[in-house]
Amino acid sequence: MMVDRQEFLQKLITKTDSKIVMLVMDGIGDTVVNGKTPLQAAKTPNLDKVATESDLGQTIPVLPGVTPGSGPGHLGLFGYDPIKFQIGRGILEALGIDVEVGEKDVVARGNFATIDGDIVVDRRAGRPATEISKKIVEKLQESIKEIDGVKVQFYPGKEHRFVVKLTGEGLDDRIEDADPQKEGLPIKWAHATHPEAEKTAEIFTKLMKEIREVLKDEPKINFALIRGFSKYPAIPKFPEVYKMRAAAIAVYPMYKGLAKLVGMDILNVDGETPEDEFETLKKHWDEYDFFYVHIKKTDSYGEDGNFDAKTHVIEMVDKALPKLLELNPDVLVVTGDHSTPVAISGHSWHPVPFMIKSAYTRAGLSKAFDEFECARGSVGTIYAVDLMSLLMANARKLEKFGA
Amino acid sequence: MMVDRQEFLQKLITKTDSKIVMLVMDGIGDTVVNGKTPLQAAKTPNLDKVATESDLGQTIPVLPGVTPGSGPGHLGLFGYDPIKFQIGRGILEALGIDVEVGEKDVVARGNFATIDGDIVVDRRAGRPATEISKKIVEKLQESIKEIDGVKVQFYPGKEHRFVVKLTGEGLDDRIEDADPQKEGLPIKWAHATHPEAEKTAEIFTKLMKEIREVLKDEPKINFALIRGFSKYPAIPKFPEVYKMRAAAIAVYPMYKGLAKLVGMDILNVDGETPEDEFETLKKHWDEYDFFYVHIKKTDSYGEDGNFDAKTHVIEMVDKALPKLLELNPDVLVVTGDHSTPVAISGHSWHPVPFMIKSAYTRAGLSKAFDEFECARGSVGTIYAVDLMSLLMANARKLEKFGA
Repeated sequence: MMVDRQEFLQKLITKTDSKIVMLVMDGIGDTVVNGKTPLQAAKTPNLDKVATESDLGQTIPVLPGVTPGSGPGHLGLFGYDPIKFQIGRGILEALGIDVEVGEKDVVARGNFATIDGDIVVDRRAGRPATEISKKIVEKLQESIKEIDGVKVQFYPGKEHRFVVKLTGEGLDDRIEDADPQKEGLPIKWAHATHPEAEKTAEIFTKLMKEIREVLKDEPKINFALIRGFSKYPAIPKFPEVYKMRAAAIAVYPMYKGLAKLVGMDILNVDGETPEDEFETLKKHWDEYDFFYVHIKKTDSYGEDGNFDAKTHVIEMVDKALPKLLELNPDVLVVTGDHSTPVAISGHSWHPVPFMIKSAYTRAGLSKAFDEFECARGSVGTIYAVDLMSLLMANARKLEKFGA
Repeated sequence: MMVDRQEFLQKLITKTDSKIVMLVMDGIGDTVVNGKTPLQAAKTPNLDKVATESDLGQTIPVLPGVTPGSGPGHLGLFGYDPIKFQIGRGILEALGIDVEVGEKDVVARGNFATIDGDIVVDRRAGRPATEISKKIVEKLQESIKEIDGVKVQFYPGKEHRFVVKLTGEGLDDRIEDADPQKEGLPIKWAHATHPEAEKTAEIFTKLMKEIREVLKDEPKINFALIRGFSKYPAIPKFPEVYKMRAAAIAVYPMYKGLAKLVGMDILNVDGETPEDEFETLKKHWDEYDFFYVHIKKTDSYGEDGNFDAKTHVIEMVDKALPKLLELNPDVLVVTGDHSTPVAISGHSWHPVPFMIKSAYTRAGLSKAFDEFECARGSVGTIYAVDLMSLLMANARKLEKFGA
């Protein structure tokens, strides 16, 4: 986006004692169902009170009309141009489950699958329990340790998911997903999109054939689809760019991975509820200047098309909110990384509502926190990549530009 | 603008069966006269009902404060960066009247004019009837066939307008308009803005002098101003970029020219009213995925400063709208290519209202289709060049960006 935001801000950013909390309710934005959006339907006295004290607006995650994955959605929120920094799913999964990724490595996400002959009949092998899947991963690791002089390591994930890491010289991640995307289609092997990646693609294809051989007598988990090939990306570190000690509070691996990628510390959460996450926030309050707090379930229920459940999660966040508010952050932003409308059962391109509470807001215009109030809020519609500079300004961490 | 939108979208665009209708009411945006804009004053029950089901917003045609011609205005709507793709008026006029333009040609738009000595006293020679003007064009073609080894061809247009085409080696279109722009000023000959165009400028100056000689005994039409010098531009083809079969429904030559330039098919309209245009839409409904429908008269009456007539055209569109709506397009956008305020009697820089109707809108916020509702709509203010990606998103023709 024209000017690299972080480069431009760099010379204005100043270190202060103020604290910023970014509360990301994943997929929060929605559309109207029976007259209301989930944010409108939910009883949210605490969020609405914050709205009366805040600057409201809405973000365009990438570009108008573009539906972001969680990676680009979050990078934008953290102030990284999501078009400039394109991050593979493999690296996010790997970082999320604490796999160390080095400069010479290529990681990818694996999906256990069921094949019948050459046809992929179940892309998730009936969603095996994590414990079963973990044993299969161990079996693979015992049989497959190296291909063409390149070291192969497997790491179990949740259910059908795992991570595979190759370590060796000259590896390249410019490879198409080895996944037909739909069931009933033939196996798709790994294909390089650039000539320099042909050797790596060949190794992944050999790997998939070896996996098929090792698992050939398994009734369901007899194959793996491999995708999201990625090297560790060169990305500026959030704490250095913004001169803040930064921590992430998240339950799901991919979001921990995203935070780790930009150099945040990952804080352990004892439990899974919003209240548990706010408890972690309280516990580490003195140790950091910036906290990213991620609520996953708003997105999950949006993906499920479950209006009532999404609404209920919003109410749970609202109910727990006083625990966060009593810490009295200098700046609080409540937003999402993208919209996940119930009516779409998936991510969407719709603008994402946000509100920023600080001592310096142009408060007074808005009465509640929802999509419509935010569309007509005091900030207007901005790119997500510009949110960080608004937070930094409200935290008085940005000096004047020019004389 | 930052990222080239079409390049970025290319890898996300997917072919589907959904249909998009882009209804362009030329110059629709306006300012308030006696308390209302023409859109507010017009009785538009159909447009207003669509507004209740739509996402509303407003577009910036080029950059804030920049008043676009019809070319940049439309290119933005079609998703082409109007600053990157600058198209001469000559090529638009030529394509609009079915002149074949080859790679070695330079075309320009001619205006018959009246001179008195060296002074241009009427830039349109009293707006002659098309039939009279056509005879003058024939007379010129008989007398002038070649200059300095370059072939010269004339094509009649409406009233005082005509097109001239040069065909030869090494022609260049970087030439200033040979038009003093105001009456009472001396003749302005053709001047190159780049050294490579000097030969071509010289030929055009010779041509203007020969025209003066041939017409010296005519009482009114005794000269021609020549402008909009242009070669055929290299421009990506709309149907290839967006993977849609695309057609244009327009009555006026320049808009047909614009559509042809980007590779749309031009559909014949039997008549000139909005209803006639919607009838054409209906007739060809099954043959295309994208329809650009152009209403000219909103702009014409804006240019004339005629509030009531502009209002009446809006009402005519509204009355005919059910014929369009009954086709049930997956996505309908109603907008303009720029504003033409009655109070300005010309194009302006004001943002242009739009509404997008689909099954996926954040509908419910807006009650009517006008400048004020659009300024406070659910989409906010965006660049015109970003409208296409919103339409593509609503038509579910864009895949998710990133994991």
